[in-house]
Amino acid sequence: MALARELAAISRRFYDRSWVLGTSGNFSAVLRRRPLRLAITASAQDKARLRPSQVLQVDERGKVVSRATLRPSAEVMLHVEIVRRRSAGAVLHTHSVWSTLLSDMYAPNGGLEISGYEMLKGLSGVTSHEHREWIPIVDNDQDMDRLARRVGETLERRPDAHGILLRRHGLYTWGDTLADATRHVEILEFLFETIGRSASLGIREVNDHGTATNP
Amino acid sequence: MALARELAAISRRFYDRSWVLGTSGNFSAVLRRRPLRLAITASAQDKARLRPSQVLQVDERGKVVSRATLRPSAEVMLHVEIVRRRSAGAVLHTHSVWSTLLSDMYAPNGGLEISGYEMLKGLSGVTSHEHREWIPIVDNDQDMDRLARRVGETLERRPDAHGILLRRHGLYTWGDTLADATRHVEILEFLFETIGRSASLGIREVNDHGTATNP
Amino acid sequence: MALARELAAISRRFYDRSWVLGTSGNFSAVLRRRPLRLAITASAQDKARLRPSQVLQVDERGKVVSRATLRPSAEVMLHVEIVRRRSAGAVLHTHSVWSTLLSDMYAPNGGLEISGYEMLKGLSGVTSHEHREWIPIVDNDQDMDRLARRVGETLERRPDAHGILLRRHGLYTWGDTLADATRHVEILEFLFETIGRSASLGIREVNDHGTATNP
Amino acid sequence: MALARELAAISRRFYDRSWVLGTSGNFSAVLRRRPLRLAITASAQDKARLRPSQVLQVDERGKVVSRATLRPSAEVMLHVEIVRRRSAGAVLHTHSVWSTLLSDMYAPNGGLEISGYEMLKGLSGVTSHEHREWIPIVDNDQDMDRLARRVGETLERRPDAHGILLRRHGLYTWGDTLADATRHVEILEFLFETIGRSASLGIREVNDHGTATNP
Repeated sequence: MALARELAAISRRFYDRSWVLGTSGNFSAVLRRRPLRLAITASAQDKARLRPSQVLQVDERGKVVSRATLRPSAEVMLHVEIVRRRSAGAVLHTHSVWSTLLSDMYAPNGGLEISGYEMLKGLSGVTSHEHREWIPIVDNDQDMDRLARRVGETLERRPDAHGILLRRHGLYTWGDTLADATRHVEILEFLFETIGRSASLGIREVNDHGTATNP
Repeated sequence: MALARELAAISRRFYDRSWVLGTSGNFSAVLRRRPLRLAITASAQDKARLRPSQVLQVDERGKVVSRATLRPSAEVMLHVEIVRRRSAGAVLHTHSVWSTLLSDMYAPNGGLEISGYEMLKGLSGVTSHEHREWIPIVDNDQDMDRLARRVGETLERRPDAHGILLRRHGLYTWGDTLADATRHVEILEFLFETIGRSASLGIREVNDHGTATNP
Repeated sequence: MALARELAAISRRFYDRSWVLGTSGNFSAVLRRRPLRLAITASAQDKARLRPSQVLQVDERGKVVSRATLRPSAEVMLHVEIVRRRSAGAVLHTHSVWSTLLSDMYAPNGGLEISGYEMLKGLSGVTSHEHREWIPIVDNDQDMDRLARRVGETLERRPDAHGILLRRHGLYTWGDTLADATRHVEILEFLFETIGRSASLGIREVNDHGTATNP
Repeated sequence: MALARELAAISRRFYDRSWVLGTSGNFSAVLRRRPLRLAITASAQDKARLRPSQVLQVDERGKVVSRATLRPSAEVMLHVEIVRRRSAGAVLHTHSVWSTLLSDMYAPNGGLEISGYEMLKGLSGVTSHEHREWIPIVDNDQDMDRLARRVGETLERRPDAHGILLRRHGLYTWGDTLADATRHVEILEFLFETIGRSASLGIREVNDHGTATNP
């Protein structure tokens, strides 16, 4: 499966950037819409050396339909939820230091607004740095059904969002294609690092309305 | 075209350093002066795997003259402007975290002075660390004609500048050759990181005259 | 010996992440339990190019039993101590900047509590981000017998700990297999960087009970 | 010349770590003692792709004795000075962000004391983390004869120092062999980063005696 090889290449690429250390992170791409068939990375694999055989095929309930001894990622239903509500072609989940930090720092505001950066134009459909991107932050939860439901509701409430942060957990982003989703990870990770370092430099403040702004 | 292969190699090199994430950045090199023929990267390509076929040939109005289905970078006229006013042989545009941060931090001063660092000697024509380099900061703009005009005016007003920062957007630098321009990117990025971290450490202050100094 | 090749690959992997610069760090894996035979890296080798021939075989007193002109790591008895008390299959010791910093910062508390991060689930047996991991910090010592004894006592007192920090020295972690131990290094290094940067951002405070908490 | 290939490999290794960006840095190794023959990198070469042919042979006055159109590094006499006064077999000069920052921060004290870190044991002859290493800081100067003289005097005054910082310029370190000198670069760069980040975290203070200490 060519998609499995592509997911393995993305895995290595993100591992090299320290975004999926210690078997963290999981990636999926749509193989077929009706009925839904999703290629998704198996649970708990070393992302430095993910092999195509560690990519499984699941259905719309997250059940494995390919012959496999491996289990899919425990977060498979978050992928399915996002694929459905966004008609996404690919969903990528990373655990970087900066996304972990910002998801913690801005959790009291329920999300993080990013505005004024040229890099925002790398998000699909965004044509100006003046775009205001709201990244919702959802509390982390080990109950995967509840977490998937909450992610689903958040996607409905914020139809323009290009990504979601799970608190002290990481980033979910997606795209029409795997290339779009990969670009979204890089764009958002860049912006998270920029905002995190701005805070260290005292450039950026959180104002009363939960909006991160530059004075 | 050998230049296209060289631009692809630079692309990978800068991607590895996180200076052109998420399809950001664009690179050009002069093929011929009269009439002007510029090799320039196509718009919105993944810089991790830029291929020589994603380098296009444009004229002095930024129109593609080679057979190509791809569009040149939207910022092509900034490249043409710089090539003309500086007689540059190559122009490189990167989007690093540190250049984004400093372009924001020093925007109120209209630019950033860098002085006292040995690394400055890597800029063409600079022979001492006592050199005072002024890097102008230009406001970001989605109107590319207006932005190119403003960059052109800034180049005229600051004939000694080796680079320009676009606010919350990134760095433009250039050189007589592609090797010179590549070196300028590395030198300036090094200096931006050094100055940014100095600020975090409280070594560096912005004084009343908009000059960054060390106390 | 296949294990020696695996240790060499891990060595390169950690060198690339700056966790074993300047010949620092040492790695071991159990070859046989009774009598104990441990494969361990030789003392003072360049971790960027560790060769399988630089991996030695030692017994339960840390004496070399393979034909070798090289000496085992001076810290061999710490490895033996950990292998015994934890029934570990592999022990990895790294010297990162962040582990050095945190081992210093939290030394007055005798250790560092990490809680609330999804990444904790990468530690063997941990199933929720709500897990409270206590990483004990032991004072550094050049008397290796005394240091090994103190590490042994700490392991007894903290049977749940997945790692130990030596003050201003680095991390010891282990696992049932080499893959588990490698994952533990990545998980803990990620968490150390996250906590260190949180402190820079003012997110994290050390409270009166020596517990690192988020306000 | 095998040494030239080794210098090229070190060059790439340090470039990958951002310690010799933009053609900065220079490296040498002794070929013969009497009369002195030094292999040294040519001036202004791209360290990402240094070729063995860009390594020249010079004598005790820094004059090229090999057939070459390239010039040796302008700092060749600093290398000769160090080789003589320390009987060094190799001299390595790097320009990292952290060495630049610390050379600035501690310049008023004339140097920087590093003590208490296990990593110090990577410096030749050091057997305990309790070792007190003093790294002298010398003002930068474009008069190379004067700078070489001042470096020479500093080496005499501080016979135990394993490295010297040039203010806002970078690190000179050396060793009996190229491997020793390479290790010294890695050890000192690690310690500089650790101390720099400690300062950001508020762990480390400069006391009245110009000694960096941990409270």
